[in-house]
Amino acid sequence: MVKAGILGGGQLGRMLLQAAANYPVETYVMEDDEESPAAHLCHHFIKGDIRNFDDVYQFGKNLQALTIEIESVNEEALERLEAEGVKIFPKPAALRTIKNKILQKQFYTEHSIPTAEYFVTADLAAVRSRADFLPAVHKIGTGGYDGRGVQILRTPAEIEKGFDAPGVLEKLVNIDKEIAQIIAVNERGEIAIYPPVDMVFDSRLNLLDYQISPADLPQNILWKIEAISLRVVKELKSPGIFAVEMFVTRQGEVFVNETAPRVHNSGHHTIEANYSSQFDMLWRVILGYPLGNTEVILPGAIVNLLGSEGCEGEAHYEGLDEVLQMDNVFVHIYGKKETKAGRKMGHVTIISREKQDLVHKAHKIRNTLKVVSK
Amino acid sequence: MVKAGILGGGQLGRMLLQAAANYPVETYVMEDDEESPAAHLCHHFIKGDIRNFDDVYQFGKNLQALTIEIESVNEEALERLEAEGVKIFPKPAALRTIKNKILQKQFYTEHSIPTAEYFVTADLAAVRSRADFLPAVHKIGTGGYDGRGVQILRTPAEIEKGFDAPGVLEKLVNIDKEIAQIIAVNERGEIAIYPPVDMVFDSRLNLLDYQISPADLPQNILWKIEAISLRVVKELKSPGIFAVEMFVTRQGEVFVNETAPRVHNSGHHTIEANYSSQFDMLWRVILGYPLGNTEVILPGAIVNLLGSEGCEGEAHYEGLDEVLQMDNVFVHIYGKKETKAGRKMGHVTIISREKQDLVHKAHKIRNTLKVVSK
Repeated sequence: MVKAGILGGGQLGRMLLQAAANYPVETYVMEDDEESPAAHLCHHFIKGDIRNFDDVYQFGKNLQALTIEIESVNEEALERLEAEGVKIFPKPAALRTIKNKILQKQFYTEHSIPTAEYFVTADLAAVRSRADFLPAVHKIGTGGYDGRGVQILRTPAEIEKGFDAPGVLEKLVNIDKEIAQIIAVNERGEIAIYPPVDMVFDSRLNLLDYQISPADLPQNILWKIEAISLRVVKELKSPGIFAVEMFVTRQGEVFVNETAPRVHNSGHHTIEANYSSQFDMLWRVILGYPLGNTEVILPGAIVNLLGSEGCEGEAHYEGLDEVLQMDNVFVHIYGKKETKAGRKMGHVTIISREKQDLVHKAHKIRNTLKVVSK
Repeated sequence: MVKAGILGGGQLGRMLLQAAANYPVETYVMEDDEESPAAHLCHHFIKGDIRNFDDVYQFGKNLQALTIEIESVNEEALERLEAEGVKIFPKPAALRTIKNKILQKQFYTEHSIPTAEYFVTADLAAVRSRADFLPAVHKIGTGGYDGRGVQILRTPAEIEKGFDAPGVLEKLVNIDKEIAQIIAVNERGEIAIYPPVDMVFDSRLNLLDYQISPADLPQNILWKIEAISLRVVKELKSPGIFAVEMFVTRQGEVFVNETAPRVHNSGHHTIEANYSSQFDMLWRVILGYPLGNTEVILPGAIVNLLGSEGCEGEAHYEGLDEVLQMDNVFVHIYGKKETKAGRKMGHVTIISREKQDLVHKAHKIRNTLKVVSK
């Protein structure tokens, strides 16, 4: 059996391991918390710091393949492991480009991939000197995740909310829709494209509110989206699974927002709604099997289940019975013992032939199911 | 989180644990082999003998709930645990009735549940004295599993193939179809019924060849099947999940063949083909959630993947790439290191709106995918 490791033990690792149990693969996970969501679902759990060179190197050196479920891993160790023959999904070079938002933006520019106009800013003083560029989005170069490290600066007075660190100042785009597309690439360069997903965001937390797949878009926009996300993935020159997040403007322009080089929240509906889920697909890539079928079985929606405001402590799921009674709904609780405001604690998928049913149930679930502390 | 244990660490446990990762539950598994298919997917693996009183009692005494993935567990320990307040799915009394084929047959008779005519036989001499009853099926009272412990005796000369142990001698029924129905019962006695499955057997190994769900049956037969399987489950008076296997004769009679008080091979298609899988459903029962939706998303078929004749040793999957290329097919490899002739090594599910597509692909998979030794 292939020995394959996952750096990170969160919910993405958990769902990867649920899918891994369909294949002959021996699984390894490294995370610093023995009670993390993925820790008990692997053959071998190794406690360690994914940001530390030695920890990552020691973890990977006897494995045949490695993947990540979070970008903040030690890429120098991955480069060393790659040089020694371990297969890394994604390649460390692609990860290095993506995990720094400055390099990521420059990558889009270099390859003529449409992305919102921007300046690289060395620190907050540099942002102040570009007050004429507002309204804009300030993104920290490294260390941002899940809405942290991103600030909308509408007026000069708001500049002080920005980061006093290298980053990019990006023109605020007049967004009509936010779209994500998951794409898989295998080692032979073959590509499988999932139908695009329409993401509806909670602007306050900058966290996903709900998403619907396939996105309802005119054919010419669909073509643009597919062409652009394909270009991103081809230029990254790496096998793996990628989520390309894009903005569609009211004028029908498409801009890449950012890319994740891993399984992604915007692909969770694929577990039930598509023939091959994003998790199944990544194992096919890692194990060298044929790519899976990305077609939709039924249209799907997901609602993220976030820790309620003002609740911190042992997680308790209010309204779970009511949601479990819904006919075409699938609950995924990530098994985190502690909740806190905005923490991703689970998600719920709805599948239905009727888009109205998806939207109606998404709102109902959103209003019914709450993660509180006991 | 509820602490729940599974006795047995085979593929049924493996699939139960894949489903458990959607819920807040702390999982325990007991099996005598640390490399069994379920061993690495639980929070706590305990090495022990599920047939041994002390092992089972020690395993269960600090848990809130226990289930089984095989009948051959120590039921005295389960009775003791039940008396001490551990919830057991199924109840030990139901398990006791079912695991002895003599008691099981008598249970059907007592409750006027149609089953093939039979005699209880104390030993092989008793079978010999009933030579006039042939052709018949001789079933050993306890210890049979997966086709072992069952012999078809067509002529008096074949009687010596029977078992010199207590058993039942059952009239050979003129079978048109073999049907299985999975039913879930929760602690409040509420019931959820899956659509019946048409099982096609390999008569040589007495192992499933392929199965199709929902079974294609006239309405009056469907009603009989549902009424009979409901009666079985109601009279067992136990929460849990049950698979009732039935024969339909050419004359349209329905006889119960046998019942399994657990998740079952005849329900594996429900992972992809039904809204709530049999594994999801059992967790709903154990955790006290509402019962799931048994409706079909798309019709499904499964093919069991058995170790090839003459192959014993490290498992190798021939034709896997070809099967993974099929559009609407889901592969489940159980991760057993060693194969041997007839061993259940995995299964493949097909879902499709078209019955012809299900049958065609089932045969193709059967002829393509082989488990051999290296």
